[in-house]
Amino acid sequence: VSAAPEAIRWSGGRLAILDQTRLPQTVRYETIGTADALFEAIRALKVRGAPAIGIAAAYGIVVEMQRRAPAIEDFSGTLAAVCAQIVSARPTAVNLAWAAGRLRRAVTATAATTTDEALRRLAREAEAIHEEDRQICRAIGEHGLPLIVRGCGVLTHCNAGALAVSELGTATAPLYLAHARGVPFRVYIDETRPLLQGSRLTAWELERAGMDVTLICDSAAAAMMAEGAIDLVLVGTDRVTANGDVVNKIGTLALAILCRHYDIPFYVACPASTFDSTTPDGASVAIEERDADEVRAFRGTQAAPAHVAVRNPAFDVTPAELVTAIVTDRGIVHPPYRDRLAQAFSGPQ
Amino acid sequence: VSAAPEAIRWSGGRLAILDQTRLPQTVRYETIGTADALFEAIRALKVRGAPAIGIAAAYGIVVEMQRRAPAIEDFSGTLAAVCAQIVSARPTAVNLAWAAGRLRRAVTATAATTTDEALRRLAREAEAIHEEDRQICRAIGEHGLPLIVRGCGVLTHCNAGALAVSELGTATAPLYLAHARGVPFRVYIDETRPLLQGSRLTAWELERAGMDVTLICDSAAAAMMAEGAIDLVLVGTDRVTANGDVVNKIGTLALAILCRHYDIPFYVACPASTFDSTTPDGASVAIEERDADEVRAFRGTQAAPAHVAVRNPAFDVTPAELVTAIVTDRGIVHPPYRDRLAQAFSGPQ
Repeated sequence: VSAAPEAIRWSGGRLAILDQTRLPQTVRYETIGTADALFEAIRALKVRGAPAIGIAAAYGIVVEMQRRAPAIEDFSGTLAAVCAQIVSARPTAVNLAWAAGRLRRAVTATAATTTDEALRRLAREAEAIHEEDRQICRAIGEHGLPLIVRGCGVLTHCNAGALAVSELGTATAPLYLAHARGVPFRVYIDETRPLLQGSRLTAWELERAGMDVTLICDSAAAAMMAEGAIDLVLVGTDRVTANGDVVNKIGTLALAILCRHYDIPFYVACPASTFDSTTPDGASVAIEERDADEVRAFRGTQAAPAHVAVRNPAFDVTPAELVTAIVTDRGIVHPPYRDRLAQAFSGPQ
Repeated sequence: VSAAPEAIRWSGGRLAILDQTRLPQTVRYETIGTADALFEAIRALKVRGAPAIGIAAAYGIVVEMQRRAPAIEDFSGTLAAVCAQIVSARPTAVNLAWAAGRLRRAVTATAATTTDEALRRLAREAEAIHEEDRQICRAIGEHGLPLIVRGCGVLTHCNAGALAVSELGTATAPLYLAHARGVPFRVYIDETRPLLQGSRLTAWELERAGMDVTLICDSAAAAMMAEGAIDLVLVGTDRVTANGDVVNKIGTLALAILCRHYDIPFYVACPASTFDSTTPDGASVAIEERDADEVRAFRGTQAAPAHVAVRNPAFDVTPAELVTAIVTDRGIVHPPYRDRLAQAFSGPQ
C-alpha cells in the first residue's frame, strides 16, 4: 500500500531498529543484541510508539534469551527476569507488559523440553505479535477509511504512524489507505514539543508517502480550526482505560478540548494491545515526567535559562467524554465506552 | 521595584537595543544609528513586543532625522517618509503607526522654525512616549495586583514583560508588583514556539527578578489546568479591536478556549496604545504569516523535512467573549467591551 518505513527489522534471528532520534536527517538502523541495549533504546526513544515498543520488546526478549540460552529447568525463571527488566523501561506503556506476558505464556503453556524448543517458541510468538500488529493496522485503516472524505483536513499529533507501530500505523492507517485509493485530503501535523515527533517523524513519513502535509506549531492548532481548515482530529494512544479515557502524548488533551469548542470530531485509533481494561480511568494512570532538559533545549541547543524549573509530563489524559469515537481493528466504537470497548476487544485476537 | 532588564536604552541622543534573539545565552546591546538598522532589528525580532517597538520606533525616527538633518522646509516631508519606512516593518503592530503619528503631530503642531528646534521636539516626544509607557505599566500593575493572590498559579504566554514594553511590562506588571510586596505565587510560562519568547525571554526575565517560575511546553498548558495548578491566565496583546477581540501571539486563542473549558479566568493586559478603536473586530486584522523555517528548525537545528509545507501565523485572534476582563492602565474593563474600552481610553493619556 505504501512506502512507509520499517521501525523494526527482524531477520534470521537478528533484531535491528531504526534510530528515530536521528530522523529526519539520518536514516540509520541499530542492531540490538542484548536486553540492556533494548532497554536503553526504549528509554532514549530510539524506538517509540506503544505498539512498536511492544514488538521491539518481544524480539528483544527473544534476543536476550538466545544469548543467555539457559538450561530448560532455568528457562522460565530467566525469562521472568528478562521480561521484568524490559517492562521497567517505560512504565506507562501497557504494551511492554502485554508482549512480555504473551512470551511467558507461550513457553509455559507448551512445556517445551529443550532450550532450543523453548527459544523457537519464543521467536514464533514474537513474530506472531508482529504479524498480528500488521493485520490490526490494516483493519484500523479499513474501519477508519470512511472518515477521510475528499478534500477534508485532518489534524494529527505526535507520531502514531508506521514508525510507531508496524506498516500502516494506527492513526495514520486510514490516511495511508485513503491516499492509496486516490482520495485527496490534507494532513496538518502538530510539531509535538518537546521531542518533535510530529515534525521529525510524522511529517517525514507522510511526506515520503506522497501525502499533502502541512506542519504547524502545537499552539497553532486552534487558529487552523478557527479558519475552518480542520474537519477532524485523529490521534493514536498509549493507553485507553476501561472507561474510555485516553492517555496519549502531551498536547492531546488540548486538541480534544479545542475540538469540543469548535464542534470538530475527535477520533482516537486504538489497537487491542492499547486497551487496558484493568485500569478504571485515566486518573489511575501514573504519568511519566521526563527530563527537564528536553524543554530547556532541543538536541543540545539551549532555549531557556540553564536551571529554570520545568514541568515535562510525557502524556496527558483526555477524558472519555471528549472523544467522539475510537477507531479499533474491530470497528469504530462510540460512547458509552465502558461496555462497548470491553465487548469489542473480548473476542479472540 | 524590580531588577527587570531594559529592552531599550536612550542616552545622549543615542539609541541602543538589547538584542533579544541572543537571549538567554548572551546579553548584548546593539547601537541603532539609522532607520534601516531599526527596520531590520524590528523585522528580526531583536526588539519585539508591541509597546517596545513603538518606543524603539519613536527613538529610531529621531535618530534617522538627526542623521539626515533636513532643512526645516523639508522636515515634514522627510519625517513622513522615515515614518512610513519604520511603520512597514511590522504591519500587525498598531503601536508603530501610533508612535510615528505622535512624532509627526509633535512637529507639525508647534511649527518649529529651525531644524534643531524640530529635532529637539521630536526627541522630547519620543522621551515622553517612553516615560508614559513606564507610567502605564505601573498603572496596569496596580490595577492587576489584586488578581495575584497568595499561593496562586498564573500562566502567561510569550513575553509581555519588561523586554516587550518598558520597566514592568504589561502582563508581568502585576507579577512584578506582587513579588515586590512579598506575595508568594508561581508563574507557569509557555515556551511559545516557534520563537520561544516564553523560554528565552519571560523565563529569563522573571527568574532574574527572583520569582518562582516553571517552564512548560505550549501543549502542556491543558494538563497543568487539569491538575489544578493554574488559577488564572494573564497575557499581553499586540492589538485589541473595537469589540474587544484580542490579537496576540499564536497560541493565545488555545489558552482562552482551555480557560473556558476549565472555568479559569483569562485576563489580557492592554495599554492605550494597543487599543485599535478603528478596527471593528479581529476578523478585520491581517495576520502576519512568518517564515516556514521558524517551524522547520529550532534555533537553527533542523527538526523537520527540509521542504515540508508549513503554516506559521504569528498571531491568532481570541474572540472577546472568551476574555474575562482586560487589565488597562485606567482600571480593569469587564464585558461588554465595545463601549467600555472606548470609554476607558477616551480621556487624556
